[in-house]
Amino acid sequence: MIDQVVSYVEAHREEYVGRLSDFLRIESVSTDRGNSQEMRRAAQWVCNLMAEAGIQAETMDTGGWPCVVADSGPVAGDAPTILVYGHYDVQPVGDLSLWESGPFEPAIRGGRMYARGSADDKGQLLTHLLAVEAWNRTAGKLPVRVKFIIEGEEEVGSPNLVPFITRYREKLACDYVVISDTTKFDGDTPAITYGTRGLVYKEITLTGPRNDTHSGSFGGTVANPCNVLADVIAGLKDADNRITIPGFYDRVLELSPAERRELEKLPFDERAYLTSVGSPALDGETALPTLVRRWARPTLDVNGLFGGFSGEGPSTIIPARCGAKVSMRIVPDQDPHEISQAFDKAVQAMTPPTVRLSIKTFADARPYLCPIDSRGMNAAVQAVEAGFRIRPVFIREGGTLPILPEFRRILGADSIMMGFCLPDCNLHGPNEFLVLEDFWAGIRTAAFLQDRMADLGPA
Amino acid sequence: MIDQVVSYVEAHREEYVGRLSDFLRIESVSTDRGNSQEMRRAAQWVCNLMAEAGIQAETMDTGGWPCVVADSGPVAGDAPTILVYGHYDVQPVGDLSLWESGPFEPAIRGGRMYARGSADDKGQLLTHLLAVEAWNRTAGKLPVRVKFIIEGEEEVGSPNLVPFITRYREKLACDYVVISDTTKFDGDTPAITYGTRGLVYKEITLTGPRNDTHSGSFGGTVANPCNVLADVIAGLKDADNRITIPGFYDRVLELSPAERRELEKLPFDERAYLTSVGSPALDGETALPTLVRRWARPTLDVNGLFGGFSGEGPSTIIPARCGAKVSMRIVPDQDPHEISQAFDKAVQAMTPPTVRLSIKTFADARPYLCPIDSRGMNAAVQAVEAGFRIRPVFIREGGTLPILPEFRRILGADSIMMGFCLPDCNLHGPNEFLVLEDFWAGIRTAAFLQDRMADLGPA
Repeated sequence: MIDQVVSYVEAHREEYVGRLSDFLRIESVSTDRGNSQEMRRAAQWVCNLMAEAGIQAETMDTGGWPCVVADSGPVAGDAPTILVYGHYDVQPVGDLSLWESGPFEPAIRGGRMYARGSADDKGQLLTHLLAVEAWNRTAGKLPVRVKFIIEGEEEVGSPNLVPFITRYREKLACDYVVISDTTKFDGDTPAITYGTRGLVYKEITLTGPRNDTHSGSFGGTVANPCNVLADVIAGLKDADNRITIPGFYDRVLELSPAERRELEKLPFDERAYLTSVGSPALDGETALPTLVRRWARPTLDVNGLFGGFSGEGPSTIIPARCGAKVSMRIVPDQDPHEISQAFDKAVQAMTPPTVRLSIKTFADARPYLCPIDSRGMNAAVQAVEAGFRIRPVFIREGGTLPILPEFRRILGADSIMMGFCLPDCNLHGPNEFLVLEDFWAGIRTAAFLQDRMADLGPA
Repeated sequence: MIDQVVSYVEAHREEYVGRLSDFLRIESVSTDRGNSQEMRRAAQWVCNLMAEAGIQAETMDTGGWPCVVADSGPVAGDAPTILVYGHYDVQPVGDLSLWESGPFEPAIRGGRMYARGSADDKGQLLTHLLAVEAWNRTAGKLPVRVKFIIEGEEEVGSPNLVPFITRYREKLACDYVVISDTTKFDGDTPAITYGTRGLVYKEITLTGPRNDTHSGSFGGTVANPCNVLADVIAGLKDADNRITIPGFYDRVLELSPAERRELEKLPFDERAYLTSVGSPALDGETALPTLVRRWARPTLDVNGLFGGFSGEGPSTIIPARCGAKVSMRIVPDQDPHEISQAFDKAVQAMTPPTVRLSIKTFADARPYLCPIDSRGMNAAVQAVEAGFRIRPVFIREGGTLPILPEFRRILGADSIMMGFCLPDCNLHGPNEFLVLEDFWAGIRTAAFLQDRMADLGPA
């Protein structure tokens, strides 16, 4: 039956591109609170497509932008249930002059579909809907039960998602979450992402003199908050780029031998990576391979500095106040609350009594890691290999997807991340694109995933 | 004869206040390039007053705002010639709502004259002109030759002064420069300032990734310019607040035993000082007394920090670029060019090859120190003691007066700084004031100075 489904998909390639274009024309930028009409239009468009695909869907209120929730209904047998998570909202378009074609005027150039949301996440999300449709049109039913939760607030930090999932945990119950919102490893190599880093984000503020004061009249007699801030930040790392916060590394998991073997097989081009970022040299805990540092080691980065005079030319002040945004990417099994507290304690201990300290916490998200040898993961590997005709590699992601540990906590389900876009597809930037061959391979993969999951039988 | 001059001064106290008010009504803010009318009015007002005082004056072009130059002409005998330096321009007024009376509507409250320029420098400058007038009206001539150079660009960094003095070095030739543009030690204690710190001002910029980049995708693999900047700044000082730049302290002069004795006698209230600046505690090379650190030790202060994201909330970037304004107050006999080069070399040595460094230099001004036991200084001490009826203390100034070493270099003359305003007279701030008793005591002091200088005879 899967052969017929794939044939159906191949026969409808052009039609799929047309539907993708329709979806991309909707200006569903979620950061704009006045964008209600386009946001509701996008949610409704997803609902309508689900109806065409033969699956029951509804638009549900979240307190913010609505969620689209769907369920194909029970199937005979004991096959696992999958819950596809995606989002219909997109990033703001930024500087329009940098776009070669309008962000909401989908344009095909060199086999790529250019538009805001083509990769993140409309194009990737659509693969799963179109696979459902292909199954229904061909076999008249799905081989596994497929549910969907498509939110409209991913690009604004999903403020209402955890309460929503908690409230509808029965409705959303599943064995695996499936997400297509990550990337391939490179143009030639499809990938399954099995881990992400967590995040602890802080703002440190130091205050010294009551007002900005004269560096001649007072210099040498009072602490300068900017100098102290430099001491504190410098003190958070040692000369080997290891973070000095007591206990920081206590819970850091080493890569397993199997992971390490997979990682060493990856065709990683360090030179190309350095060129793409544009720094004069790579850095970090340089005794470790770059991909290990990127995916499996915690970091501490200053995201911003402010204080005193930053205009043109000189101003001879001792600033009254300064600050730094400092964030840490954390890895399994570091706990964000423990790290948050350890950070505060370390910064407090390093701050002398000559200045006043305050610390704010803006984010603490858990890291995520799931087994790469689960039955569902095996099915996903087979599906990607069948869909792309190349065996996928296992990768981790240096960034953070706060919802993954929440899916595990609330629904008891691990997430399988099958990414179909390129790593340099201009996600969040101008000229975002999705390679059309990858779009079609994604649809095939999503179709194969249902087939391979159905073969698993009871857990 | 000096008794009659002082009696004349005492008899004209109210008239002097009227003339001061007239001067203060002129809105001679030099930062405003469109303020030509008021600037020329102020220069002309000074010229006219000199004529009334019986001294030949002219307004001379400098390329910027004009200078008023005057010369009382040769006197019989070998008494030294003094050159009074001052400025008729004033600081901008800032936030008008903070002024209790208009900055250019002179108002007397509690024996103080409130107006922009009352202390800095119109009121202080005027003492010397009125002393000339008192001598001429009483004795028909001055006991010493007095010259004046009154500039209109002090508040904008005197960009044309050094070329002007160089060009007119013969015309301005003198034995001592006299300046009343500093402060008393406190309300009760008049002071002569005999040293100032110099200044070397730098801007460090560090560049890492080509653009602000994702701290998840790249964190741990490239250097973060903000973290490196913190390392560099922190590395410029040790745990005892000593500057680590190689050779930095090589030329630092210790206080002489005589200076140290004078300093220890000063009625310095550390508690009040700390309260006035508003820091939680004093800091610096705390093995040394506060006044030593303030006047006779070099400093290194960050005047501003910038880089990355400094808005509300979190943004998870590795900044492409960041920077710091860093300035050093230097002391005798440190050389600003040597210190400038040593700073650059130290920063270069501390910057790793993982970021790109650039350094700009915005200022390098020499420190200044003159003997406190010269014949002219002795005359000044006697004059202040006679004028204020309290013996003055010798103090230094933590700030920088770049012109002092230039007067010494070009004219071969040391500067005697007799300050008549209070240390907290809101110089450059709202509600600037001059205590009228100090104004009158200043006029007496200026009159006594001519008398005591005349007694010196040939150098």
